Amino acid sequence: MGKNFLSCEIYYYPQKLEIGEKIIIENEEAAHILKVMRHKVGDKIKLTDGYGYEYEFLITNINIKREKLEGEVLNKKFLPREPNITITLASSPLKGENTEIMLAKTTELGISGFLPVYFQNTITKINENKLNRLKKIAISSLKTSAGTILPKIYNPLTFDELINLFPSFDLVLLAYENCETKLTNVVNKKAKNILLIIGPEGGFTVKEVKKAEEGGAKFFTLGKRRLRSETAGIVAVSLVLYEFNNI
Amino acid sequence: MGKNFLSCEIYYYPQKLEIGEKIIIENEEAAHILKVMRHKVGDKIKLTDGYGYEYEFLITNINIKREKLEGEVLNKKFLPREPNITITLASSPLKGENTEIMLAKTTELGISGFLPVYFQNTITKINENKLNRLKKIAISSLKTSAGTILPKIYNPLTFDELINLFPSFDLVLLAYENCETKLTNVVNKKAKNILLIIGPEGGFTVKEVKKAEEGGAKFFTLGKRRLRSETAGIVAVSLVLYEFNNI
Repeated sequence: MGKNFLSCEIYYYPQKLEIGEKIIIENEEAAHILKVMRHKVGDKIKLTDGYGYEYEFLITNINIKREKLEGEVLNKKFLPREPNITITLASSPLKGENTEIMLAKTTELGISGFLPVYFQNTITKINENKLNRLKKIAISSLKTSAGTILPKIYNPLTFDELINLFPSFDLVLLAYENCETKLTNVVNKKAKNILLIIGPEGGFTVKEVKKAEEGGAKFFTLGKRRLRSETAGIVAVSLVLYEFNNI
Repeated sequence: MGKNFLSCEIYYYPQKLEIGEKIIIENEEAAHILKVMRHKVGDKIKLTDGYGYEYEFLITNINIKREKLEGEVLNKKFLPREPNITITLASSPLKGENTEIMLAKTTELGISGFLPVYFQNTITKINENKLNRLKKIAISSLKTSAGTILPKIYNPLTFDELINLFPSFDLVLLAYENCETKLTNVVNKKAKNILLIIGPEGGFTVKEVKKAEEGGAKFFTLGKRRLRSETAGIVAVSLVLYEFNNI
């Protein structure tokens, strides 16, 4: 790895901290710090709490066998690198590793939430194990992207339940394959809190499209080519960020 | 899989065909047609030749044991679903499966070429096996996206060799992490033949950035968050297509 990457390395600690606070880091994060990055006592590293704060942290003690380290918070700043809009990505669970790929890439991009949805054409279900795996992937991608706000991973909803949530968003966007409207023509630039819906591998049913439209969703195109669902999710998040001047 | 997907299924045959022509399809494509999709004699399927033509094809004979089928071209149309610009994506080979992920997703989006580049910070090299694997991935993604033009997979070049190729493109774009210029401000909408450069995992060196600038590359940002190289490639291709009204 080159210097650009190393100078940006950041670790996740799941609590807000204060300057001068002494904490112990264990488990996977400690293993990463000690065994992969080979940090020593006296090294300063960066932590993020997933709430927008970044900490300068001094390593004061190491137990490499037990994958444990102690240290002290030297500095604290509020530094959300995330977009000035929130994007909740609602997507069908996908086959194989595709949900993980979509979540990893869109977490790097800075989504605020990931909401698995059971559509008519959804084949894959999400269980407790998969949810936990997705939470781990979000943390690991947060670190990759030096992000500071961890996306919330929601429990799965049916599409009808999702429609009931539409009113809690400023803008509901739905990437629809049979639509030719460009995103720029449906975005309301004043929106802050966006729900972005990506369909399952088999596509939306006519009934679902109708219900979504009645619920106020705005449809937009991802181009003439047929994208896999996970690609559609990554592309759609990119375009929404671009439209809102976050890229 | 739902009906939307099935109605769009398409197979790859690596030669231009004429109406009435009788051909034999073997190997992986035949296995896909016969064993996965379970097509029978009398079924009509779609073929694409990777040159922009789509064929209606009638299955007239099947040998399921030998994974072989015969049939006849019923119809032919020129139907390029690819963008009205060509994008050659030049990227460092990446660790693990990341080159494959980037190539798969950007082939779905419709790139015309993929050019592996050895930068100063490139760690992974590409050998004959990897090149062949990439070619297979491009074919499989072409089918996924019902695309009709197969991206060319080039042999690896050094960054200096790539710079020598700059004059053969209308527009050379480089996604640079230390730059805040929005893509829209550097694109020349008259460009047709675009080279899009994505850096290696360790980033560009100062020297490379200088040389690229002298060669006429236009730098643009992918946002404040740090993206993995394969994510950067997918996002950059999406945004270029969006800027050129292909999404």
